[in-house]
Amino acid sequence: MHRDLERIKRDVLTMGGLVEDSLASARLALASRDIGSVESIERVEVEIDRLQLEIDDEVLKLLALHQPVAGDLRFVMAAMKIVNDLERIGDLTCNIADRLREVLGTAALTAPLNLREMMQCAGTMVSRALNSFVHLDEAEARAVLRLDDQVDDFNRSHFALLIERMRRDPQCVELAVGMLSISRSVERIADLATNIAEDVVFICTGEDVRHSKVHEQS
Amino acid sequence: MHRDLERIKRDVLTMGGLVEDSLASARLALASRDIGSVESIERVEVEIDRLQLEIDDEVLKLLALHQPVAGDLRFVMAAMKIVNDLERIGDLTCNIADRLREVLGTAALTAPLNLREMMQCAGTMVSRALNSFVHLDEAEARAVLRLDDQVDDFNRSHFALLIERMRRDPQCVELAVGMLSISRSVERIADLATNIAEDVVFICTGEDVRHSKVHEQS
Repeated sequence: MHRDLERIKRDVLTMGGLVEDSLASARLALASRDIGSVESIERVEVEIDRLQLEIDDEVLKLLALHQPVAGDLRFVMAAMKIVNDLERIGDLTCNIADRLREVLGTAALTAPLNLREMMQCAGTMVSRALNSFVHLDEAEARAVLRLDDQVDDFNRSHFALLIERMRRDPQCVELAVGMLSISRSVERIADLATNIAEDVVFICTGEDVRHSKVHEQS
Repeated sequence: MHRDLERIKRDVLTMGGLVEDSLASARLALASRDIGSVESIERVEVEIDRLQLEIDDEVLKLLALHQPVAGDLRFVMAAMKIVNDLERIGDLTCNIADRLREVLGTAALTAPLNLREMMQCAGTMVSRALNSFVHLDEAEARAVLRLDDQVDDFNRSHFALLIERMRRDPQCVELAVGMLSISRSVERIADLATNIAEDVVFICTGEDVRHSKVHEQS
């Protein structure tokens, strides 16, 4: 069983690495205004989807063969949830790539957005959540939970700025709606990193911190 | 084990019933333009979250105690995923309620949207997906997969209409962004109903239809 558990862990990390690469490509495209960087994202997404199916299958086989209990059982259940969250992050990154293709083709928007910083912050949350999973590091997982508020603040400020911008200049509506969509997708990626961190807390402690006030308390 | 499986099934259905009630309340609020109907949604959401934690716990205990295999194992794993999807539908319905509070307070938007029909269609998908789960009815689950395109079409047409509307009248930007958000949430609810139907196909056949071309083929 130990070998099968290690294999699942390794595959989750491979999948996580691909998700991190895609996020980095999206951030690079935004920074350089060069759409070339997002070309790889769809290709990587196919690989991410394949890994999800593979890991789910490994989890089912492990449960049927080895009947893990206690910490090992929590680990495999959490791994299955984490894989689901990673796949959704991959999907959202594809959505961001699609929107970037539209918005980078048009003139830059003269609004003081912090999309790059926001993407950086969400990317850090994903990386640290994965890191907390590798080392089963509860403190690191709880640190991720605290970062989520920053990303939410970015999103709220983007919404206010973009709505104001559309009111003043109807010509930029389509572009601004694209930026709104990117901002919301990044915010959802941060939420999913939070889910992963909650699952790591659960593996470490058996404590289910979803729907609790842990974020405010910590 | 049979009794524990039945209990999980019953609790998933209770949770599903609450999600359906919330969706119906949101649709009613939109139809009657009476915000009173959404007041219950947050209250129900607390109950939905509580049931999610409870069912996940029941699943863990069942796996540890009874070590199910084959169809029973697929059933409990799928139940855990379905519960996750139902919780997200509950979340999205809360988002819709928040947006409805904003948009129903202002003048009606003169754009020919089909939000109510779209919500009806997504609600039907959720109900039929749950129904396919109760009866482990593969044909019913596959019917749900085919409905998703309709909801996607509604969403695309809403986007085009609302962007056009904002261009013509900058005064309605905030309202239109609220409507965009509602439309997108409904579209995501339909996606989650699709996920549930995919899980039911998996329980029935062992065939994992995620990321496959099953929707187009069926």
